[in-house]
Amino acid sequence: MSSRLPILVDLKFDPETVARILKTAFADRGSINLADPASKALDLTGIDYALLWKPDADIFKRAPNLKVLFSGGAGVDSILSIPDLPDIPIVRFADRSLTTRMSEWVVMQCLMHLRLQRAHDRDQRDRVWGKLVPPEAAEVTVGVMGLGILGQDAVAKLRVMGFNVIGWSRSKKQVEGIETFDGPQLDTFLSKTDIVVGLLPLTPDTTGLYDKAFFKRLRQGGALGKPVFINAGRGKSQVQADIVASIESGVLGGASLDVFEVEPLPANDPLWHLENVFITPHDAAISEENALFRHVETQIARLERGEPLQFVVDRKAGY
Amino acid sequence: MSSRLPILVDLKFDPETVARILKTAFADRGSINLADPASKALDLTGIDYALLWKPDADIFKRAPNLKVLFSGGAGVDSILSIPDLPDIPIVRFADRSLTTRMSEWVVMQCLMHLRLQRAHDRDQRDRVWGKLVPPEAAEVTVGVMGLGILGQDAVAKLRVMGFNVIGWSRSKKQVEGIETFDGPQLDTFLSKTDIVVGLLPLTPDTTGLYDKAFFKRLRQGGALGKPVFINAGRGKSQVQADIVASIESGVLGGASLDVFEVEPLPANDPLWHLENVFITPHDAAISEENALFRHVETQIARLERGEPLQFVVDRKAGY
Repeated sequence: MSSRLPILVDLKFDPETVARILKTAFADRGSINLADPASKALDLTGIDYALLWKPDADIFKRAPNLKVLFSGGAGVDSILSIPDLPDIPIVRFADRSLTTRMSEWVVMQCLMHLRLQRAHDRDQRDRVWGKLVPPEAAEVTVGVMGLGILGQDAVAKLRVMGFNVIGWSRSKKQVEGIETFDGPQLDTFLSKTDIVVGLLPLTPDTTGLYDKAFFKRLRQGGALGKPVFINAGRGKSQVQADIVASIESGVLGGASLDVFEVEPLPANDPLWHLENVFITPHDAAISEENALFRHVETQIARLERGEPLQFVVDRKAGY
Repeated sequence: MSSRLPILVDLKFDPETVARILKTAFADRGSINLADPASKALDLTGIDYALLWKPDADIFKRAPNLKVLFSGGAGVDSILSIPDLPDIPIVRFADRSLTTRMSEWVVMQCLMHLRLQRAHDRDQRDRVWGKLVPPEAAEVTVGVMGLGILGQDAVAKLRVMGFNVIGWSRSKKQVEGIETFDGPQLDTFLSKTDIVVGLLPLTPDTTGLYDKAFFKRLRQGGALGKPVFINAGRGKSQVQADIVASIESGVLGGASLDVFEVEPLPANDPLWHLENVFITPHDAAISEENALFRHVETQIARLERGEPLQFVVDRKAGY
């Protein structure tokens, strides 16, 4: 049965971690790790399944009969942009652990802005005892952009922490307990938002979306004084020069960024030392290899039992 | 009716804020603010209710016929230690807003330790792109000490964020979804705990409780490597020299402290600049005056309708 052929793996993650965890993963069929020099000479024409993150350019020439592509991350923009991508199902990475980690990051960033953590950091550095009385969470509206698996989990947890939460997505979605807005209602959504949380995929529509004009549409004079921009989606959705300019001019009161137009963020970038900005190096929700491999095994098992694949990418929508 | 006499207020908070908010509070009976010099000459012998935080030493001589004392804070140790305290009910401050703010602080501190925020801060300062892969919340056990209103709210929110949570209290309490321990089971509780969160009142039993021996009983080698100490209860429950020594010797991996043996924390204290320590100036859950006055109005209305007071202090237990 062809379904017992090994899985083709080309993950440009940390190579030692991938190699180590692959040793015990996919026990019933094995794997071919393209990072292994010995794989260079292998015939891949019969392979059915590939698990990819920033794969080699010739991958589809070498493996022309793939039936399903699995993405190594939740975002699939880097896969969709590969030339000569075959017309087969692409499955995104969705995982409880990835979702939990992203919500940890989102809730922590919202709380750090709410509770003026950078002011406390400064006081601590200067050995200053300075009581701060910020608003409480209920006075602050967090607007979550992107209401997929990650967005909905973040919404639920932000609500439990007491924030007032609203949501926006390209097409209208109902999410329990919050007011939601869709595409053309972006202006209304932004005008009610004190902290905007970007969890959008990278598509032509979202490229460069977070720019100076966007930040100006956020609510001014809310409980935090000035609005805050948080992005854990994709770096190319933001115009970084505009983030810097908007913070310097006072249109934005701060930011938390896990993603950047160019990664790693260059050492000379002004964002590193900007007032009230939190920088993390695209590690808000790292694809954990064990969880990724379990997810792929689960989806292959579904397919081979005759059940539909889950988390299949809508190629027309771009995510 | 004597119940319409003004409320005696002696709150050593920010005097301007108290005076401003008192203008519109207690509309049906008014108030006497002892911070107002004009009050010095008033006869207080008929007054029924007093709202106090660090009151004048002669307060009970001037107002000998009080029927109920309301505390300006959730902790009542400073009230219980007043000499000549009359034998009348003492009502602690309990309020949705105060509870919400405390849980914001507790959850944020636990997340900052989980997500290695101080390491990210250092990398950001040094313009270093350094991905970190901390454990996820489920791998870390937060042990909450004190399972009253504040403790139970923190437990529920920590669970939603994915932490494994356990609880300890002096007398056994059932709390939904978590394993709880009581007085003599402290050793077992501590040996399972990676992050201990202190929300205990100050009593003779809890004075100096968090010392070197206590920190050594926490779990070593858990998912965070070393245990973390978080205290938002009372500063005199901790031995600060032992916190410093335990961090320096590696028994503790970090701390978050909102309360201190002496407040303000002196500028020359080593805690300010210790590795992986977060300091806040006893502002985790500030008594917000509007909420405090509403709480007092609610309790007086209950009493005058013939219903029992809520949140009455157990003077023998000391909280």
